[in-house]
Amino acid sequence: MSDERPEPGTVRPGGRTAKVREAVLRAAGDALAEDGFDRLDLAEIARRAGVGKTTVYRRWGTVPGLVADLLGEMAADSLPRAITGSLLGDLTAQARLVQSTLNDQRQGPLFRALVTAASCDRQTAAALHRFYRVRTEEWAPCVTEAVERGEIPEGTDPADVIRAVSAPLYYRLLVSGDEINQGTADRAARAAVAAAKEGVFTR
Amino acid sequence: MSDERPEPGTVRPGGRTAKVREAVLRAAGDALAEDGFDRLDLAEIARRAGVGKTTVYRRWGTVPGLVADLLGEMAADSLPRAITGSLLGDLTAQARLVQSTLNDQRQGPLFRALVTAASCDRQTAAALHRFYRVRTEEWAPCVTEAVERGEIPEGTDPADVIRAVSAPLYYRLLVSGDEINQGTADRAARAAVAAAKEGVFTR
Repeated sequence: MSDERPEPGTVRPGGRTAKVREAVLRAAGDALAEDGFDRLDLAEIARRAGVGKTTVYRRWGTVPGLVADLLGEMAADSLPRAITGSLLGDLTAQARLVQSTLNDQRQGPLFRALVTAASCDRQTAAALHRFYRVRTEEWAPCVTEAVERGEIPEGTDPADVIRAVSAPLYYRLLVSGDEINQGTADRAARAAVAAAKEGVFTR
Repeated sequence: MSDERPEPGTVRPGGRTAKVREAVLRAAGDALAEDGFDRLDLAEIARRAGVGKTTVYRRWGTVPGLVADLLGEMAADSLPRAITGSLLGDLTAQARLVQSTLNDQRQGPLFRALVTAASCDRQTAAALHRFYRVRTEEWAPCVTEAVERGEIPEGTDPADVIRAVSAPLYYRLLVSGDEINQGTADRAARAAVAAAKEGVFTR
């Protein structure tokens, strides 16, 4: 479907190594979502993936190594930004994507477990921060284009705006425990736009 | 110093039971801040507190039971809200309090560990949510008074505004890993005020 397919032979998406990685990362995500970070175990992930234990230990070595690889793949696979023609439209799409992710039966517990894992391990923290840097960069053009359209002031920091949209949703998931619904998402987007228009995020 | 001292005999702040509780909660906070949630252990906390293991097991039973009691005391002990005469002044004080807490060498790791613990245990999650509900209620009058002064629209939801101030700071601590400084705090307050004035948080 894509014009950006690599030359044949440069990667082997159907190759055995790729299939093992896919199965193991899928199993790691399932285990994190179902059991949480504190009960994560490489042998159990190998069993879930139907892969030999030694393969998993040899390739990933440790739980943090495996979680970092999972986060790398999640960053590479994650959805492209919205292009709606207005900052409010774009940021509402971003907020609703975060909301549906955090409310998803598998993805919600998975993200919670990844944040928990990052709090307990430096390598995982670095991988988590990289994941969010990639996501923030993906959505940043919504802000720079809004500056070009004259919707918000010159010098608005794109990362600050993108983080402002996600923050209230993650705060509810991780900290306050309040419900996250579409109203929460839409208010997060409207609040970020109001603050950006006011020049709060200019440098 | 206070006019609200209870009748003598109704509590015994210097009593042995109170002293044991104080020592154990202090040791639990230290252990959480230094070692994180994943290595928390009642016997080690008893040792740190200089209290018998059986006392700790009998009184608190489990790690989540002890962490819930710690969160209850933190809520009871936490600082009163600011009264500056303007919404921006009050919310800037709130944001800077959160910022200095999350950047504090003991408190930062402690709050991170408490959030992590809450992600792994329902009783701890309930205690954490109660803690933030108490804090949010403490600061809510900043918003209702701003409504009375005509700074922001009638019907503004106080909890939404208070959460909007804290969320960007916790997001950086727990999720994106970006630095939290006084500029971050001041922008969080200004963003919440801009959104509140715009009517984003009215119901």
